[in-house]
Amino acid sequence: MKMYGNWRSAAAFRVRAALNLKGIPYEEIFLDLDAGDQHKPEFRKINPQGAVPAVFVDDGPPLMQSLAILDYIEDTHPQTPLLPADPRARARARSLAQVVACDTHPLYTPRVRNRLMEAYELPRERMLEFLRFAFEGGLKTLEARLSGEPGTGRFAQGDAVSHADLCIASLWVGTGIFGVDTAPYPTVKRVAEACLALDGVARAHPLKQPGAPTQ
Amino acid sequence: MKMYGNWRSAAAFRVRAALNLKGIPYEEIFLDLDAGDQHKPEFRKINPQGAVPAVFVDDGPPLMQSLAILDYIEDTHPQTPLLPADPRARARARSLAQVVACDTHPLYTPRVRNRLMEAYELPRERMLEFLRFAFEGGLKTLEARLSGEPGTGRFAQGDAVSHADLCIASLWVGTGIFGVDTAPYPTVKRVAEACLALDGVARAHPLKQPGAPTQ
Repeated sequence: MKMYGNWRSAAAFRVRAALNLKGIPYEEIFLDLDAGDQHKPEFRKINPQGAVPAVFVDDGPPLMQSLAILDYIEDTHPQTPLLPADPRARARARSLAQVVACDTHPLYTPRVRNRLMEAYELPRERMLEFLRFAFEGGLKTLEARLSGEPGTGRFAQGDAVSHADLCIASLWVGTGIFGVDTAPYPTVKRVAEACLALDGVARAHPLKQPGAPTQ
Repeated sequence: MKMYGNWRSAAAFRVRAALNLKGIPYEEIFLDLDAGDQHKPEFRKINPQGAVPAVFVDDGPPLMQSLAILDYIEDTHPQTPLLPADPRARARARSLAQVVACDTHPLYTPRVRNRLMEAYELPRERMLEFLRFAFEGGLKTLEARLSGEPGTGRFAQGDAVSHADLCIASLWVGTGIFGVDTAPYPTVKRVAEACLALDGVARAHPLKQPGAPTQ
């Protein structure tokens, strides 16, 4: 597989972590999103949306959208399952993943941040209020569900890592990058850290990829 | 099944349409989102996120997140498949669904619209610029992909209706409700209208549900 990604992309992180956990070899080409690589004509031919990740699995068009790519990997590489076999548990794992991938992450992408600043002439600090609103909405929902629903175990769904954890971990890393207060979310923290401690996930960490700031 | 929904909810529409297409009986309880039913303590006990749809399939907690519910329905009721069997085609159908359900719809929910108006003291008309930005981002990506990728057929993925079409139809109905210009998106229009013409989808249409404005 050949993946177009970026160190900071939460979506690329999820896919990279799944490939590592399953031991699937891949090559990653890192775009410089700050330099606008994603908007260049040669990348728009790959993904008209100008977004990463885009993953080539054969000679056809690339796969896009992190959750769709995770499902494809699951369908074609069932070893080390990253979704429960039981439909009810699968639905819960998927819904927790989607709290992040649908309702939270899309609200703080560079596309949205830039639009808010440009269209409403907002200074960066006021735009960041919206970013924190996005994170807090997701984190509050996750804390309420993870602490209140019986399905939570060592990981978000039971005792095996799943797509839910990969998405939660990607959100958790974002709280560090953007300085979001995480004190009110102890259950999310526990689950995210259990996932981030796995070797395949740790190796996929955004701050360990080419282009990331040195700490 | 028992579903909490709302006439206007794009996410509830997708689930209602899938249940109709598969002939699965269900009861829908319509919340009044304008009156804030979704924030009342009794509904927060059902879904801490305060969002519809929430679907009870057994005595356990409800299922949430429209794409996770669609997958659960697919896993448990395989008749009239709403995803292709081939993993590559499934991934494409899912990714088109997620262009809507992840990258577009979450940007124009009431939660976000209200936040923009309150936090930035925007009049409704200026908030609607952001809503149109959200729709146009999704519609442009869908038009480029549906018109340019070889997988498109009578429907978004090949010649059978799938989750992609249900999501695209839910976005298309939104363009009517919010007055978004649809002229630049002829392929999206063709695909959305093919889906909306199906009897099960037509019966699920937002404007045919209790609480919808009479035309």
